[in-house]
Amino acid sequence: MSSDARFAEAAAALGHSFDGELKVGGNYVGLLRDGDTVYVSGQVPRVGSTVLVTGRVGEEVDLERARFAAKVCAMRALSLLQRELGTLDKVRQILKVTVYTQSAAPFTQQSGRDGASELLQSVLGVAGRHTRTSVGVYQLPKNASVELDLVASVRP
Amino acid sequence: MSSDARFAEAAAALGHSFDGELKVGGNYVGLLRDGDTVYVSGQVPRVGSTVLVTGRVGEEVDLERARFAAKVCAMRALSLLQRELGTLDKVRQILKVTVYTQSAAPFTQQSGRDGASELLQSVLGVAGRHTRTSVGVYQLPKNASVELDLVASVRP
Amino acid sequence: MSSDARFAEAAAALGHSFDGELKVGGNYVGLLRDGDTVYVSGQVPRVGSTVLVTGRVGEEVDLERARFAAKVCAMRALSLLQRELGTLDKVRQILKVTVYTQSAAPFTQQSGRDGASELLQSVLGVAGRHTRTSVGVYQLPKNASVELDLVASVRP
Repeated sequence: MSSDARFAEAAAALGHSFDGELKVGGNYVGLLRDGDTVYVSGQVPRVGSTVLVTGRVGEEVDLERARFAAKVCAMRALSLLQRELGTLDKVRQILKVTVYTQSAAPFTQQSGRDGASELLQSVLGVAGRHTRTSVGVYQLPKNASVELDLVASVRP
Repeated sequence: MSSDARFAEAAAALGHSFDGELKVGGNYVGLLRDGDTVYVSGQVPRVGSTVLVTGRVGEEVDLERARFAAKVCAMRALSLLQRELGTLDKVRQILKVTVYTQSAAPFTQQSGRDGASELLQSVLGVAGRHTRTSVGVYQLPKNASVELDLVASVRP
Repeated sequence: MSSDARFAEAAAALGHSFDGELKVGGNYVGLLRDGDTVYVSGQVPRVGSTVLVTGRVGEEVDLERARFAAKVCAMRALSLLQRELGTLDKVRQILKVTVYTQSAAPFTQQSGRDGASELLQSVLGVAGRHTRTSVGVYQLPKNASVELDLVASVRP
């Protein structure tokens, strides 16, 4: 099965489509390519014009919902890659993922069962293995519960 | 008009000079070049030895002042690039900007009208288009309201 | 003296061994190489299964202890590089270090006397000079006081 087919399956499993416009929250671009390296802007769990998961994780938002949010962020990043490359099979390797979780003071499970890491690997296979940094931030744009960006290497 | 001329205009509009020493807050360097890729350290809105904008955005600092702070951070980054390259016309592309805003708990406008993104594009033109990640952090060095770092590709 | 010998000296000075398994806190990898560029995942000050320094810096944790934590994070990153490359002498340059400090609201010394920057340069010499971004976050995985990631260029 191609990465694109697995991407479609993951979208269906999440119950959302990532075919529409991927709004950017300001005066910047969603993705830039520099040779074989691609930078993807910070993604919040927005579908259409709605941020699906907002609020502080460990307080207003539980771990399962935060994992869902991280998956939606990752799907947006993958959708941007797919549009740029034509197919996700051209992703050689996700090099680095940074996950920012809007955290309650005592919430310390930013790592561990991160939905984004699982999703990237289930869609891309070994190309989805990545290094990662997870931190708990105080606030995020539009009160999003999670934001995620990434760097990837791609095939020419 | 060259990027350097637009840089000088932007400095005049902000009412500050970026010709002096760009102090580094610790045991590291402001900029490093790796082939055609340049990494710029996190910049706070410091001119000379004064951090111009301090405090929590959305509480002690309003959005306009935060935008000004982000512009000063971006000017510092551009000044470092200009010193390294001789001219800003050798910036091929700003690849990635990360903006950290010292945020009040309810402040969720880290994205949107970010002054740094506008400034980079007004000085560099299309070379100033970039991917971006904006997050709200709890505190920053020297109580700065904003910190910004970037990665750029440059011409040989 | 080789970088590896200085690494061993630094480990002895810290009173900890970095020879054991370097646990990863989730479904990702500690290090990835892309050509001559290496990405290292966010490291917390963990030795074996214990995070040595936890809690909020400037409140529960003082500056000296935070510096120790940053050094342990940096040693973990160096250990990952050493395992990948066979020897730290193959590190050409640490390009970028990002340091996240779990900060108390009034703690503004995230920069300045950062232990990680000192350690990288004492072990690697000029190859340890780097750009850096230091921010104060609200929480970190496993309540760690500090988390650090880096990007390096390496010799073929």
